[in-house]
Amino acid sequence: MMEKTLDTITPPAASELAQKGQEARAAARTLAFLNTESKNRALEALARALIDQKAEIIAANQIDLSGGHAAGLGEALLARLVLDDKSLTAMAADVRTVAQLSDPVGETIDMRILPNGLQVGKRRIPLGVLGVIYESRPNVTVDIACLALKSGNAVVMRGGKEAVHSNRALARIVQECFYTNGIPPGAVALMQDQDRAAVLEMLRARAYFDLIIPRGGATLHRFAIENATVPVVTGGIGVVHIYVDASANIAKAIPLIENSKIQKPSACNALDTLLVHRSIVPQLLPLLGATLKKSGVRLHVDDTAMDTLAGYPDLEPAQPADFGHEWLSMDLSVKIVDDFDAALDHIYSYGSGHSEAILTENYSNAQRFLQEVDAAAVFVNASTRFNDGAQFGLGAEVAISTQRLHARGPMGLKELTTYKWIVLGEGHVRP
Amino acid sequence: MMEKTLDTITPPAASELAQKGQEARAAARTLAFLNTESKNRALEALARALIDQKAEIIAANQIDLSGGHAAGLGEALLARLVLDDKSLTAMAADVRTVAQLSDPVGETIDMRILPNGLQVGKRRIPLGVLGVIYESRPNVTVDIACLALKSGNAVVMRGGKEAVHSNRALARIVQECFYTNGIPPGAVALMQDQDRAAVLEMLRARAYFDLIIPRGGATLHRFAIENATVPVVTGGIGVVHIYVDASANIAKAIPLIENSKIQKPSACNALDTLLVHRSIVPQLLPLLGATLKKSGVRLHVDDTAMDTLAGYPDLEPAQPADFGHEWLSMDLSVKIVDDFDAALDHIYSYGSGHSEAILTENYSNAQRFLQEVDAAAVFVNASTRFNDGAQFGLGAEVAISTQRLHARGPMGLKELTTYKWIVLGEGHVRP
Repeated sequence: MMEKTLDTITPPAASELAQKGQEARAAARTLAFLNTESKNRALEALARALIDQKAEIIAANQIDLSGGHAAGLGEALLARLVLDDKSLTAMAADVRTVAQLSDPVGETIDMRILPNGLQVGKRRIPLGVLGVIYESRPNVTVDIACLALKSGNAVVMRGGKEAVHSNRALARIVQECFYTNGIPPGAVALMQDQDRAAVLEMLRARAYFDLIIPRGGATLHRFAIENATVPVVTGGIGVVHIYVDASANIAKAIPLIENSKIQKPSACNALDTLLVHRSIVPQLLPLLGATLKKSGVRLHVDDTAMDTLAGYPDLEPAQPADFGHEWLSMDLSVKIVDDFDAALDHIYSYGSGHSEAILTENYSNAQRFLQEVDAAAVFVNASTRFNDGAQFGLGAEVAISTQRLHARGPMGLKELTTYKWIVLGEGHVRP
Repeated sequence: MMEKTLDTITPPAASELAQKGQEARAAARTLAFLNTESKNRALEALARALIDQKAEIIAANQIDLSGGHAAGLGEALLARLVLDDKSLTAMAADVRTVAQLSDPVGETIDMRILPNGLQVGKRRIPLGVLGVIYESRPNVTVDIACLALKSGNAVVMRGGKEAVHSNRALARIVQECFYTNGIPPGAVALMQDQDRAAVLEMLRARAYFDLIIPRGGATLHRFAIENATVPVVTGGIGVVHIYVDASANIAKAIPLIENSKIQKPSACNALDTLLVHRSIVPQLLPLLGATLKKSGVRLHVDDTAMDTLAGYPDLEPAQPADFGHEWLSMDLSVKIVDDFDAALDHIYSYGSGHSEAILTENYSNAQRFLQEVDAAAVFVNASTRFNDGAQFGLGAEVAISTQRLHARGPMGLKELTTYKWIVLGEGHVRP
């Protein structure tokens, strides 16, 4: 509804997007003040339906899996596609978790009476219509639909072609459960068009969308930034550092570094580069090497570390490009730094503003790191894997933002809202 | 610093922008944690210098004014250009006002201890480097420099060519006062290049800018939306409605409507279209006509209103394009509506999401209007002219946003900040 004067950028066409966008706009107008009970009732119905109709979902998923095998998808990608009894049970539990989260819509903040008697405050409202562009995992279809509904937003989703049958089956169930529970039709839509051109069309459809969230790799994010006229929240690219300060507690540091690297190497908050203060190298590296060896971590190390780690089974000299690189694998770059400032400078130059940690027992260095390092999340003596909506207590997340505007870090329900100023007078005029 | 991986979008060039952008980036790194006293000291020095060096500023301004006369600029534009004793005294006072505002940087919000003992919260930090593109008024140069400094941001400004000498004189004084008071060089820069291509270069320079604020007309905003890869906050286009409900208090309504229209007709929060409930037409319109006639308001009215207002000196039948039009003048569109829902529908279809008001004594209609009308500011029984940072108690504003992300309505110091998550552990690992 905003910026109507700019609608001419995307003239409505008789396309699938135009139809779904218009329906979403219409739905958003009533979704914005649907009460929490109604939203939760629809979510509860969906949680039940995901179990009751699992045979149908699994059958649709089988078509995608066969297609994936035939197309030669890798094991990792195929694993992310699978829907089975276990994953559907987990999905139903996630839907109930969203139902239990508190509803951010309607909260009134900063309300006060000005000296002239005017009451002024802000009321939290949904963003409006979301567009979400995502890749293989079909559970995203259900996650996004639930977070959008609970935050009062309509959503038009565009999933990956590998999961097209699974996504359609899930979207049909979502739509049925929502509609029969009083949610306006058009509140949740799935684009059928699998043409790449549809992505560009979405990114420029200011008439229909208030926010586009691209969930995928760097190529998708770059494409969105280059081409979008709709505001976009990007993220997901994490070049993550841990700096081990001279005063770090070795017994805490080793399991923490291991956890940051191996607990889920494919995640954006997994450790990429370890920076080690020169003075702690002799105490840290041999013990760390012994631990990471058991986990099968491949090390890419600078000259100094190379000497200390001699004998590590999977060791390579670091190439310049290994710093500032997001591994998404069991690889780890290691660099020895001369002092605290050199660590800050390295992070300033190579970080992507996602997750950065210091391990230290020194109070002033902890404070300086928190102050001077600029990232979505800055950690002292904690694993970078905690940069996550559920871990931070937001309940669920729609994405992790590495941009600075609107939301930074995990985006939960509240980050899918905006506000309007409300002003209550008694005939007030401006002098 | 953010999204380093996307820097390739704008390869650094040996241009003025590249140089100023790099200097601003470097300055931003220390500006981010400069203490409040240092910032206020520089602002105080600037307030004094604007008075001490007024002869130089006025001399530079004379060159712009002569140029403007020669180029045939209209009286209104020339009036906005003028710097004199009075406007410089006001400017110095505004600088001191910014010094007195509380510093948003460093505030820690939502800090809590999670069940696992991890301390998690958000710390408010500057956005980084701002780009501001503005048109004629030279006082914007000083306003923006002060708001950027107080919020810990570096800024690269690009003013209009009509005010080039005035802007350069002001920027030189700002830079001198800031630099001699310990603010890093590069914190405030003014683009010398007056080429239109420099605007496009700024809008796409993700390596240097975290936010671009275009301050100008609809054409500039549209150009920014179409071309920016840097996040942009747009606003300033206000198609503003007042709906006079059946139960409105006529004695309050008439001065309020007049105030919304004539207190500053060129402002974006000035009234454009008056919607009147059919049942109150006989009581309201004749009295309102008598008042607006004295102010010289030109009315563009629908058929029903035409009959009631017969005899009004400056009356025309409304054309379809008069609704949804931002007048920025002493013109006003008037439409009679059958009921409350028709008013909501009109605002939904024609509003730009800027400022919308209802005049009513009916409790339920006031509540429904607040709930269902979606705009940056929604008013009950108050003039739309209050949609302003100073009027809302924010102290000063850098712009009024009509977009939904990040900030909506008046943007003050806090809206020039973002946050980082800070996480304090004791060796915590993720299970």
